[in-house]
Amino acid sequence: MSETDVQTTAKAFRAHLEKMAHYNEALALIAWDLRTGAPKKGVEQRAKVIGTLSSELFAMQTSDEMERYLDALSQTDTHGQIDAVLRRSVEKSKKEFDKYRKIPKDMYREYVELQSIAESVWEEAKPAADFKKFQPYLEKLVRFNIEFAELWGYEDNRYDVLLDQYEPGVPVAKIDEVFSQLRAHIVDLLKEVQASPHQPDTSFIKQAFSVEGQKAIGRFILEKMGYDFTAGRLDVTLHPFAISLNPGDVRVTTKYDANDFRTSLFGTMHEGGHALYEQNISKDLIGTPLCTGTSMGIHESQSLFWENFIGRHPSFWSCYYDKLIEQFPEQLRNVDLDTFYRGINVAGPSLIRIEADELTYALHIMIRYEIEKGLINEQMKVADLPEIWNAKMQEYLGVVPSHDGEGVLQDVHWSSGSFGYFPSYALGYIYAAQFRNKLQHDLPDYSKSMAAGDLSPVRIWLTENIHRHGAMYDPRDLLQRVTGEDLDARHLVEYLEQKYKDVYKISS
Amino acid sequence: MSETDVQTTAKAFRAHLEKMAHYNEALALIAWDLRTGAPKKGVEQRAKVIGTLSSELFAMQTSDEMERYLDALSQTDTHGQIDAVLRRSVEKSKKEFDKYRKIPKDMYREYVELQSIAESVWEEAKPAADFKKFQPYLEKLVRFNIEFAELWGYEDNRYDVLLDQYEPGVPVAKIDEVFSQLRAHIVDLLKEVQASPHQPDTSFIKQAFSVEGQKAIGRFILEKMGYDFTAGRLDVTLHPFAISLNPGDVRVTTKYDANDFRTSLFGTMHEGGHALYEQNISKDLIGTPLCTGTSMGIHESQSLFWENFIGRHPSFWSCYYDKLIEQFPEQLRNVDLDTFYRGINVAGPSLIRIEADELTYALHIMIRYEIEKGLINEQMKVADLPEIWNAKMQEYLGVVPSHDGEGVLQDVHWSSGSFGYFPSYALGYIYAAQFRNKLQHDLPDYSKSMAAGDLSPVRIWLTENIHRHGAMYDPRDLLQRVTGEDLDARHLVEYLEQKYKDVYKISS
Repeated sequence: MSETDVQTTAKAFRAHLEKMAHYNEALALIAWDLRTGAPKKGVEQRAKVIGTLSSELFAMQTSDEMERYLDALSQTDTHGQIDAVLRRSVEKSKKEFDKYRKIPKDMYREYVELQSIAESVWEEAKPAADFKKFQPYLEKLVRFNIEFAELWGYEDNRYDVLLDQYEPGVPVAKIDEVFSQLRAHIVDLLKEVQASPHQPDTSFIKQAFSVEGQKAIGRFILEKMGYDFTAGRLDVTLHPFAISLNPGDVRVTTKYDANDFRTSLFGTMHEGGHALYEQNISKDLIGTPLCTGTSMGIHESQSLFWENFIGRHPSFWSCYYDKLIEQFPEQLRNVDLDTFYRGINVAGPSLIRIEADELTYALHIMIRYEIEKGLINEQMKVADLPEIWNAKMQEYLGVVPSHDGEGVLQDVHWSSGSFGYFPSYALGYIYAAQFRNKLQHDLPDYSKSMAAGDLSPVRIWLTENIHRHGAMYDPRDLLQRVTGEDLDARHLVEYLEQKYKDVYKISS
Repeated sequence: MSETDVQTTAKAFRAHLEKMAHYNEALALIAWDLRTGAPKKGVEQRAKVIGTLSSELFAMQTSDEMERYLDALSQTDTHGQIDAVLRRSVEKSKKEFDKYRKIPKDMYREYVELQSIAESVWEEAKPAADFKKFQPYLEKLVRFNIEFAELWGYEDNRYDVLLDQYEPGVPVAKIDEVFSQLRAHIVDLLKEVQASPHQPDTSFIKQAFSVEGQKAIGRFILEKMGYDFTAGRLDVTLHPFAISLNPGDVRVTTKYDANDFRTSLFGTMHEGGHALYEQNISKDLIGTPLCTGTSMGIHESQSLFWENFIGRHPSFWSCYYDKLIEQFPEQLRNVDLDTFYRGINVAGPSLIRIEADELTYALHIMIRYEIEKGLINEQMKVADLPEIWNAKMQEYLGVVPSHDGEGVLQDVHWSSGSFGYFPSYALGYIYAAQFRNKLQHDLPDYSKSMAAGDLSPVRIWLTENIHRHGAMYDPRDLLQRVTGEDLDARHLVEYLEQKYKDVYKISS
């Protein structure tokens, strides 16, 4: 193509992407609203609005127009004529385009319908602990995902192409490697932790903490983290989340447990970590598919960084514990800083993933990962899942659920057909620890700043190295750029050993 | 067309209308969000989202596809083959289509840009009381509206076709008639009110009223009115409004003045009245252009009905005044019911429309109506407006603003080019009084129910007669159906005379 043709096509493509971004923003607002107080009688009609806007978006994503843009702009001879942002936008769009185009329309529609039915069946099956009820739907969902993987194609492992949706470029071979590296260490460390005579005192945690006080602390800490309230807001919801409408409007939600300050405190820091990522994406990426975190795992690395590496760090509390006592004097006046620090870092086996601590969390993920790998490669049957689940819980954590509601049915992900999503939670920990190692190298005094109440060096480092790039780089490329390393569980292992030996006073 | 062709076209037209309704719903949510706490840094990008969705909507409204549907379905021989809802949808859509199609695209774009600039100029000019700054923009806006009127065409008066946008079928000739009927009576009554030795005691109004207490009362009264909180929500905003996303999601907003309970109390009842209209539109109209109030005036009749005929009625307070005292014992314990009732019904000349009382409000509207009529018919010049305004204020209300900020610049409407809107506020009063007269006839005991705390007979009557029909009938047709009368200020005159002679103890 001539230079002029390329520029004309590039301009039209950019406008097309911008329009898609506008639809995504409207859909994000609807999603936020539905989860923060939209009246229930309006939901049925709202679902149709979502349907209309999503269909339009899907049509734009897979249109002949899109195909022409992508064909023209992905030719090698045009590469030199378009900027890096546009090149990467072409690459990302083409990947989505190719994937969607391979699924027959009827099949896709059938799948979307199945997802919505399966989710409502799961909602009933979970409290009733009735796996049999959910089983036929799960079987169909697995079947669809197997067929998608076959349509999309893969090299080594059928599960790879599903993983790639959430964590581009991190296949089974790599996850097996880092998970096995991690698992052995966690299991050993957990044994030491359980055997320690120095169990933390957690008696101060379950007390009455006013919601008003928790709100004040949550807002205070978000501000200290550098969350920009003129580019976001904090609301209450049942299942907390952060959502980006655009980098100038990234919203955080939380929930308050009147008898446990940890839910909102660490939950807010966690969602705040996600939000900082989205608020600090470069303005240059607005209106492109790159204006978002690059993967679920990298996103989770940011939330976990703030929740655990900052929010459960002794230096952080050496500065801010007084603020918490000020808000809850009756409850915490007689709890000293060391007791507090050790109490909020208690660890041990548990049944429920979302309630698991920093040490055992990855084990919960590994169980799900192995099951997904087994199902998608047809080495496991859905019907056997309760049994497999319980056996793995026993093997990894030493505890067994008393019923499937607190076992195999506990998470929503599978009911919406999200296979490949779970591993990103544990990969997030691993990335986070790798980033932390590099941060320590770049800013050796960062914990001193933290102890002085200044979190800005950390936030700025994260923005400079990670946030601003949005989805410019795939996760492993980003990791390489920032740390000079590939995915490696070593730093997480070191971190966990150091931390839990400190908390549980285990001599090395 | 054959019966089959008609049905196929009707089905496609309905789908087209539904899609438009979905876009409108998304835009309504965005509008609500922007006015209830959307972070300011996201607004610039949100404006682009609005631009994209509005353009799509406009394209659907004026598309060749729409033209084909309207041509086919508005043929007389198809009339018998489609139901009343669809016939009316065709009629309403055709009216919009014809109007939009008559405006050249470039002209429309230029106008939209002018609107947005003019509004921001007005926002600066008003606090600075600088009419000269706003004048050139207002001149252009008037010019555009004159040109629109010429493009659209009219029979008697050029201003008719602008009025028709807000109050279909209510032309200058009719408004002149009812306004002059009303004006003479109000001016006389106002003199009597001002001369009365029995001026209400209003000293209890300006006290500290906790926002929490006001919130509780507002929610309580909304519930008593029959506002369905599972189909709506109440939020805080700077300029209160009600907005319908769909009949299952109609939101109300209010603001709290910590030193005057009236702002939120009567404001909430006012917006609640609008919301009841939208919540109770028949489900059969969802997805059509009829799923909304039929005109600005009929809408205002509903809000004024609740705010004034209920909220300022002695029977209402004979039941609920205790509830208010319960919330504000210190402030109201020593204010007896009669003093309270007379205090909240105080009347007198004032400068600002939105702060005007029930008696003088219509006079504020008449001033604006006469100015608009003069401008659009080129009998007045924009440059002379400050002078004209002040002279009319003196003539109608006997007070003159000390500067244009509290005079001709006070309202936002003209800055967005809304000429023809103002009259609907006063028409709303007239309609409301006509409805009230019929309600009294149908339910002679309605004020007894009110005194017993039961507002449901009123709400049900309004739903049955007005709400459920949405935009099925033009305002005067609706009035005829409900009351058997055409527009007539007589009932409002009677109501005002009776009420203010009571409040001001004027003997007839």
